[in-house]
Amino acid sequence: MNTNETINKLLAKDVSWLEPDGNHDDIAICSRIRLARNIEGISFPIVADADQRSEICDMIRTTVINSECLDKPEMFFKMNELSALHRKLLLERRLISNELSGAPQGSALIVADGENSSIMINEEDHLRLQVLYPGLDLEQAWLKISHIDDCLSERLAFAYDSRLGYLTSCPSNIGTGIRASVMLHLPGLILSEQINAAMHGIRTLGLTVRGIYGEGSENHGGLFQISNQSTLGESELMIIERLTSVIRQLITHEKNARVMMLEHNKHIILNHVGRAYGRLRHAFVLGIEEALNSLSALRMGVDLKMFTALDIRTINDLFIKINPAHLLLIAGKPLNDLEQNIKRADVVRETLRRLESEAKN
Amino acid sequence: MNTNETINKLLAKDVSWLEPDGNHDDIAICSRIRLARNIEGISFPIVADADQRSEICDMIRTTVINSECLDKPEMFFKMNELSALHRKLLLERRLISNELSGAPQGSALIVADGENSSIMINEEDHLRLQVLYPGLDLEQAWLKISHIDDCLSERLAFAYDSRLGYLTSCPSNIGTGIRASVMLHLPGLILSEQINAAMHGIRTLGLTVRGIYGEGSENHGGLFQISNQSTLGESELMIIERLTSVIRQLITHEKNARVMMLEHNKHIILNHVGRAYGRLRHAFVLGIEEALNSLSALRMGVDLKMFTALDIRTINDLFIKINPAHLLLIAGKPLNDLEQNIKRADVVRETLRRLESEAKN
Repeated sequence: MNTNETINKLLAKDVSWLEPDGNHDDIAICSRIRLARNIEGISFPIVADADQRSEICDMIRTTVINSECLDKPEMFFKMNELSALHRKLLLERRLISNELSGAPQGSALIVADGENSSIMINEEDHLRLQVLYPGLDLEQAWLKISHIDDCLSERLAFAYDSRLGYLTSCPSNIGTGIRASVMLHLPGLILSEQINAAMHGIRTLGLTVRGIYGEGSENHGGLFQISNQSTLGESELMIIERLTSVIRQLITHEKNARVMMLEHNKHIILNHVGRAYGRLRHAFVLGIEEALNSLSALRMGVDLKMFTALDIRTINDLFIKINPAHLLLIAGKPLNDLEQNIKRADVVRETLRRLESEAKN
Repeated sequence: MNTNETINKLLAKDVSWLEPDGNHDDIAICSRIRLARNIEGISFPIVADADQRSEICDMIRTTVINSECLDKPEMFFKMNELSALHRKLLLERRLISNELSGAPQGSALIVADGENSSIMINEEDHLRLQVLYPGLDLEQAWLKISHIDDCLSERLAFAYDSRLGYLTSCPSNIGTGIRASVMLHLPGLILSEQINAAMHGIRTLGLTVRGIYGEGSENHGGLFQISNQSTLGESELMIIERLTSVIRQLITHEKNARVMMLEHNKHIILNHVGRAYGRLRHAFVLGIEEALNSLSALRMGVDLKMFTALDIRTINDLFIKINPAHLLLIAGKPLNDLEQNIKRADVVRETLRRLESEAKN
């Protein structure tokens, strides 16, 4: 399968980690764990030259593919062989980081187990393992990534210091090298104007808050990524347990906000959700930010059983599919900004129309 | 029938002059002619005292009712016997002027022929005859009002000067005392940004442009009232012919604007109309200005056959029914601003839902 075919296969698939699994998935969209690992005695990617990087990349790839440490490793991409558009697609699907999307020589991505597991090669570190699960499920994600890590560590000599732990390119990852995050959907806290207080509380607990696409994308679509900041001084399980406990509190907080609004200011929720639906279902030009925020409101409406014909799964997918690279690849041709906004409106409108027509039959 | 019963009867009726009659009614909503008349030898209302005004009012009323000059004169209201809310209702239905809604002692309104004909007594002048017809139909409106005027002039001695013509309280009405106006719906000219140039042109022709509720209400809902400014030096028929000819040009201009946009910028019209529909059909809180503008867009969409389940008649009525006094009377209780906005959204949403459900069956 050549790169174009692989990309098209990816594009045609629903995002596997957005499949609701009943694990608080009304409010917790997905749980992600990343582990940073490096090979002993080899320069970190940022200081290695292009040839060294390519050599390490091939070595890691061969080892991983032959190892059976990953379930069904279906896709492999060399970054510098991908077009800018294809790299953007991988970024929008949260398979690669901003850094990797810059396509440094000798960087690559392995995708496995649907899109639930993946490995970035030669990002900031030699390996960045990633496991993404739907809902709030850091424990399962940890079991999975921990298995992959153990399995690979028998085949690759990971740089490890008995005092510091795993050595990483950036000191902020040293120790466990773990970055755990949960993406939460908190429109109730936004609508009831409690979000700033809640996020302030999160930050004072030493956790980080980001938007759907990392730093600087806060609050788009009411989606927030909460992650651990420190990788040192706590075990992986402690980090995960502490994060999970905070997330559970936020989920309760969001649910209470919705109940309170439904009891005391029902018109605010009905109006917010109704208008969002009206916009998504009937607009012919739709910007990305407006689309994300409207989808966020609609998602809450579906959670609240206001739209029996619609399902969370489809709305989750739309959050991904309305992004520029997805739209351009679906359209199969270049689109200027206005054309993208028209295409975005078409995709959303048609998706909702189709669901409603299916629900009727 | 007491006043409350008469008001309720009015409220329950669809506005008769909003019934589409095929006379350019896609763009020309209605045509109105008013004639100012005064009784010879009696002080103008503004200088008469309360007792004099009441006396003149009773005299005019008795004469008019006994004259059979009006078809089916069904309703009679003494202004100072009406609540502020009821007076506002009459204002919203364009049966009385702002001045009369101030409820001066000895002022009254007679409504006849559905709501097509009416007479304000002791507004600025002793009599203000009004005829309102759907569509562009100043000629028929003139025939009608001219008949009423001739008929009444045989029973009431109208103040007339052979050199100046009819004498009126305000010099701007002296001569013919005629004020002819057509309400136009021009969303295409607004959307294509040609409206300011068009209205500037209208003003240079010596015509006046106002909004749906007179001066200061320009451009709400894309509705414009175009009327003659001068009442002196031209015959009534010349005034009407000149106004009609300008209106026909504006109608052509509006139609061309729509065709051009549909050809070259279809997405702008589809998006504008689609979003308006989405808002009207799904909002739960709706301000008056937003409602008027959205109805305006939807009306154009219905004209353009984008909504087969909806009809112009119902949308025309909504333009009237979403006004505060109508909403309060429909609700049957006092409503604060937020409650009015909620009620407005309910009325609009339910009307559209009902039409769609009827169209399906």
